Amino acid sequence: MPDASPAKWHLAHTTWFFETMVLQRFMPGYRPFDARYAFLFNSYYEALGPRHPRPARGLLTRPSGNEVRQYRSAIDDAIERLLHEVDGATLAEVEPVLTLGLHHEQQHQELLLTDALHLLFQNPLQPAFRPPAQAPIAPPPAPLRWLDQPGGEVVIGHRGNGFAFDNEGPAHPVLLRPYQLASRPVSCGEFLMFIRDGGYGDPQWWLSDGWAAVTTQGWNAPLYWTGVDTPEPTRFTLHGPRPLELTEPVSHVSLYEAAAYAAWAGARLPTEFEWEAAAPPAIGDVWEWTRSAYDPYPGFRPFAGAAAEYNGKFMMGQVVLRGGSLATPPGHMRLTYRNFFPASARWQFSGLRLARDL
Amino acid sequence: MPDASPAKWHLAHTTWFFETMVLQRFMPGYRPFDARYAFLFNSYYEALGPRHPRPARGLLTRPSGNEVRQYRSAIDDAIERLLHEVDGATLAEVEPVLTLGLHHEQQHQELLLTDALHLLFQNPLQPAFRPPAQAPIAPPPAPLRWLDQPGGEVVIGHRGNGFAFDNEGPAHPVLLRPYQLASRPVSCGEFLMFIRDGGYGDPQWWLSDGWAAVTTQGWNAPLYWTGVDTPEPTRFTLHGPRPLELTEPVSHVSLYEAAAYAAWAGARLPTEFEWEAAAPPAIGDVWEWTRSAYDPYPGFRPFAGAAAEYNGKFMMGQVVLRGGSLATPPGHMRLTYRNFFPASARWQFSGLRLARDL
Amino acid sequence: MPDASPAKWHLAHTTWFFETMVLQRFMPGYRPFDARYAFLFNSYYEALGPRHPRPARGLLTRPSGNEVRQYRSAIDDAIERLLHEVDGATLAEVEPVLTLGLHHEQQHQELLLTDALHLLFQNPLQPAFRPPAQAPIAPPPAPLRWLDQPGGEVVIGHRGNGFAFDNEGPAHPVLLRPYQLASRPVSCGEFLMFIRDGGYGDPQWWLSDGWAAVTTQGWNAPLYWTGVDTPEPTRFTLHGPRPLELTEPVSHVSLYEAAAYAAWAGARLPTEFEWEAAAPPAIGDVWEWTRSAYDPYPGFRPFAGAAAEYNGKFMMGQVVLRGGSLATPPGHMRLTYRNFFPASARWQFSGLRLARDL
Amino acid sequence: MPDASPAKWHLAHTTWFFETMVLQRFMPGYRPFDARYAFLFNSYYEALGPRHPRPARGLLTRPSGNEVRQYRSAIDDAIERLLHEVDGATLAEVEPVLTLGLHHEQQHQELLLTDALHLLFQNPLQPAFRPPAQAPIAPPPAPLRWLDQPGGEVVIGHRGNGFAFDNEGPAHPVLLRPYQLASRPVSCGEFLMFIRDGGYGDPQWWLSDGWAAVTTQGWNAPLYWTGVDTPEPTRFTLHGPRPLELTEPVSHVSLYEAAAYAAWAGARLPTEFEWEAAAPPAIGDVWEWTRSAYDPYPGFRPFAGAAAEYNGKFMMGQVVLRGGSLATPPGHMRLTYRNFFPASARWQFSGLRLARDL
Repeated sequence: MPDASPAKWHLAHTTWFFETMVLQRFMPGYRPFDARYAFLFNSYYEALGPRHPRPARGLLTRPSGNEVRQYRSAIDDAIERLLHEVDGATLAEVEPVLTLGLHHEQQHQELLLTDALHLLFQNPLQPAFRPPAQAPIAPPPAPLRWLDQPGGEVVIGHRGNGFAFDNEGPAHPVLLRPYQLASRPVSCGEFLMFIRDGGYGDPQWWLSDGWAAVTTQGWNAPLYWTGVDTPEPTRFTLHGPRPLELTEPVSHVSLYEAAAYAAWAGARLPTEFEWEAAAPPAIGDVWEWTRSAYDPYPGFRPFAGAAAEYNGKFMMGQVVLRGGSLATPPGHMRLTYRNFFPASARWQFSGLRLARDL
Repeated sequence: MPDASPAKWHLAHTTWFFETMVLQRFMPGYRPFDARYAFLFNSYYEALGPRHPRPARGLLTRPSGNEVRQYRSAIDDAIERLLHEVDGATLAEVEPVLTLGLHHEQQHQELLLTDALHLLFQNPLQPAFRPPAQAPIAPPPAPLRWLDQPGGEVVIGHRGNGFAFDNEGPAHPVLLRPYQLASRPVSCGEFLMFIRDGGYGDPQWWLSDGWAAVTTQGWNAPLYWTGVDTPEPTRFTLHGPRPLELTEPVSHVSLYEAAAYAAWAGARLPTEFEWEAAAPPAIGDVWEWTRSAYDPYPGFRPFAGAAAEYNGKFMMGQVVLRGGSLATPPGHMRLTYRNFFPASARWQFSGLRLARDL
Repeated sequence: MPDASPAKWHLAHTTWFFETMVLQRFMPGYRPFDARYAFLFNSYYEALGPRHPRPARGLLTRPSGNEVRQYRSAIDDAIERLLHEVDGATLAEVEPVLTLGLHHEQQHQELLLTDALHLLFQNPLQPAFRPPAQAPIAPPPAPLRWLDQPGGEVVIGHRGNGFAFDNEGPAHPVLLRPYQLASRPVSCGEFLMFIRDGGYGDPQWWLSDGWAAVTTQGWNAPLYWTGVDTPEPTRFTLHGPRPLELTEPVSHVSLYEAAAYAAWAGARLPTEFEWEAAAPPAIGDVWEWTRSAYDPYPGFRPFAGAAAEYNGKFMMGQVVLRGGSLATPPGHMRLTYRNFFPASARWQFSGLRLARDL
Repeated sequence: MPDASPAKWHLAHTTWFFETMVLQRFMPGYRPFDARYAFLFNSYYEALGPRHPRPARGLLTRPSGNEVRQYRSAIDDAIERLLHEVDGATLAEVEPVLTLGLHHEQQHQELLLTDALHLLFQNPLQPAFRPPAQAPIAPPPAPLRWLDQPGGEVVIGHRGNGFAFDNEGPAHPVLLRPYQLASRPVSCGEFLMFIRDGGYGDPQWWLSDGWAAVTTQGWNAPLYWTGVDTPEPTRFTLHGPRPLELTEPVSHVSLYEAAAYAAWAGARLPTEFEWEAAAPPAIGDVWEWTRSAYDPYPGFRPFAGAAAEYNGKFMMGQVVLRGGSLATPPGHMRLTYRNFFPASARWQFSGLRLARDL
């Protein structure tokens, strides 16, 4: 898949980010580990020069995994040296960039898992990424409750001192109508009812582009589901193929499938403002599609310098997801966090939560 | 181009809309003019059955233009008959559907012109759609002024009794920050400065997908412009090729080009709310791209019946344009009107107006 | 279809051929009818400059059919004038080029019909190119007989004084083994047995690229056949849809289907040498695929001048067909004639005749 | 590139060939090493069931290289056991299949090198497959001499007892005109003159599809050549990038480039019959394109059983190459050997030798 990258590329790329944004800028006389890596491991920073095309990443047999690990080790050492040697004024400049690098790496930790899952699924041997854990019996999902939300004027976006990406600000007031939000994400069992009711065959539930995707790509279930017409559907996971667990949240659906399910269920997706205002009490295992295009907040200002390209230039043709997934590093989740993917993306751990008007 | 249709198709399609939505539903015992036309001239109504694929429309040598005009004549007669025969209660039901059909036809009147312009441009002979009018000398554009807007709580969307599409409602309050809006759209001369300053070659101004379009499709000027590197650029119009008129509003730019220009000019595009709240005093010759994805308004409800597919199912992956163009039938323009196209579309009469924060 | 052209294009192109090859070269002071036509109506002569891309031919709404007929009329008149005015020596030079132009036009007469058939078939209305003739009841096909051929040394290629294309020469001896050739082409009824025996579902009969075409393009019968699984298959013809006539020769098959049928029937296709040596007693309604790639004959020399591009540069990736079809102008057929198309082509009137080793 | 496969796939595939063709057929009670490998490592044998698509081979991270080597070891052991245990009558049946498997593996030894070269070339680091040997100074190429060939009736194809592929037979007489064959393949220096004379920019030298490849794919030199416009052109080889050695045979050209060069040089390519009849005295470092489509010899009969798919079904749309390359295992070359690739293939070690009419 052109959107996915090999594991060693992720490691090399986050390493390159630290090298370029921190070492090259702040360490006097720093010389690149390998000048050619800038070309190989730059993902999309136009300001930092040309780069290797993403779909060709799978063709890189060299540098090997070992060489990438050596690269990482060298950069880790250099960063540590920098932190010991640098004066206080410079450290104050280094710190936010280093922090950004850490959050950037957390994002790639999740992407590494989603990409690996996708790659292993292509393999007819259906290998597991890691051996199945002693699987705890999943508890039945709590019955879905509708939580009343008053709406009115609410403040959206990041405030306070902790780290946040530029796209989470500035904080600003928004007017909401009263609404209800579901107490938990939609489960696999609930989604299976949509399938068995012919949901993938009935255009009335679908956005136009979604219906086109269904018919041209033959979607008939979430990604990684097989055997939905049989008594024993299975799902391909990081632990290999497993029986479909009806109580787990549905995952690996596109925005189109999420919106179609919601329409079928007589509800809708929440906007990202409704989601944030309600501050759902527990984050499930999946990112939750919202019904908000990924537009800039009023007064949005990108990060300064090369990091300006981090978020702003992707604010077109994408949809906001909120929450976090089982693959998200725990410290990486945040109530104001705005994840985003195209409406057709399915290889992320993406599910949905219902909303409805009051 | 797969998005464009031949002229006779537009006429047949709007005719079919009246036949299907009005005659089939309200005229007792009505029998279709030609049962096969439903397949040929349905554009996208899933509820009304399968249809001829859009890119194949250009292959229809039959029915001929004459046959389509006969079709139109017959439907016009039948509608007139219906209006004379029907009782008052039914008339009250017929009226909104008929009105919708008229507004639908107005939309296709504009599309017919944009499609014809595109088709003629493919022809190396560069034929004119109609002979050039005695062209009045275009006045110099008024100097651009920045109009202060107070922001605050404003009501957005259609209210009152006249016709509006479902996507214009419901009316609802929105909070805006103070801002400024330009007094007129960007002119060809202003846009030419962006080009000559290397705007199409500098990624810093562009959204990511826009930059991809520039590099893969070789964009170096608005659609229909030629010779931008020469002293005498030209523009292909419905009157054939003409010298580029610097004082006219720039047209046939994508959202990507509009946003890149705005960034280069140190400004931005207005949101659709900012545009509507300011109610620009004069509508220029072009639709104006806004920086708002085409999302549903809070509480949005589609039209009832087959017309439910009119707007709602396209609310993903599109961007709102406001205003109206030289090709828009005059009675079709409305302050709350939400036109929409994908960010990459250039074959519409689409320009831009600048905004900036206060 | 990118290989097909509109009817008026064929007329304009053959006219342009006369204008360019005859008038521009031999008429002193000749000025082109319209200098832009060279771009529009040149099909593939690199030596004669750039040209309009073939798949865009369907987009040419101008010049209109009437304008093209005026073009033809003007060129016809000029040619006639030239023939009256020219001296004997020049006439001797003009004559072979003019003759080539006439044969070229005959080729396009057939292409015009194959392209029109293909275009009308795309139309859901299934219109007829011309009204059905009073259809004579087709006689049952003669029982297939195997005609013994001695092989040995035979002379292949054109000899004598009449016109021939460059690719038919030079005449040269070839050694053949003894073989048998069928007395007539394969009939629709025979081909239907192959279909009903599962021939399109069994890879053992197919060349590798043929099997790929079957599976990726869903071939399950010759082009224009529908309802092969029903008791009443139909075939789309220049007279519109008609019941499949079992006694007629099968037509509109690719080389892949021809070769698969032959393998299933325990036979093979003849080489073009075997075909020519046997000089089949009656030419059927279809071009007959041979098992010979379209390679140059030993000592092949292209026509001189711009006509050098007529045949030689296509001698790669094509397969030879022999005979002639119901759409071939009668004077255009010749025992040594080498027609050629890619192995996947189906929109020609192409069938097959069986051969086998002795 | 969709035509190339990873190294471990080649090893697994040749191993699977032995397992399937020899062990499964001749060893009583044999159980597959891993039943899923038949799906992964079957390349194109329809009779042996469905298979993993070729372009997806690069996605197989499992089985690992080590697992494939274990697979090979196990099959080697089993084959050895079979050879010791089997009776004489069966051995006589096993032997030809085993021999075929060995020749099959030799073919993949060469493909492994051509695929690896192609993959490494995609890598911006330009890594070498193996360290450069102590490069002997290449001797200047012998001056090209034209060797007279009498033509007449010659016998073509394999005779005698040694192994040959089915496509090399049956031996049969062919008539040839007198001709001349060059004493050696065309050198890089000679080909560079074609380039510097504008050969890639002049359509008169090119077959039609070849010219299309030049213009759409931007060919301006053989594959792996860079800097042809500079004083120091380089060539990417299995030893990494090296200065272009003018005395070496040109390699990695398509049939189109070979034929264009020959036309520019006032010569032509030999037919495969001319090549075989002349039995060139020394085989160079490259396969030599001939001007013969890969058609079956008269009376051709495929191998029996599953190996029937080995050659025959590819006899369409390909061109014959003769000789052998620096990557061909020495025992694998044979005067009657018919290698074949599509006319556009460039990633093989493919060059050319000139011929001309007498």
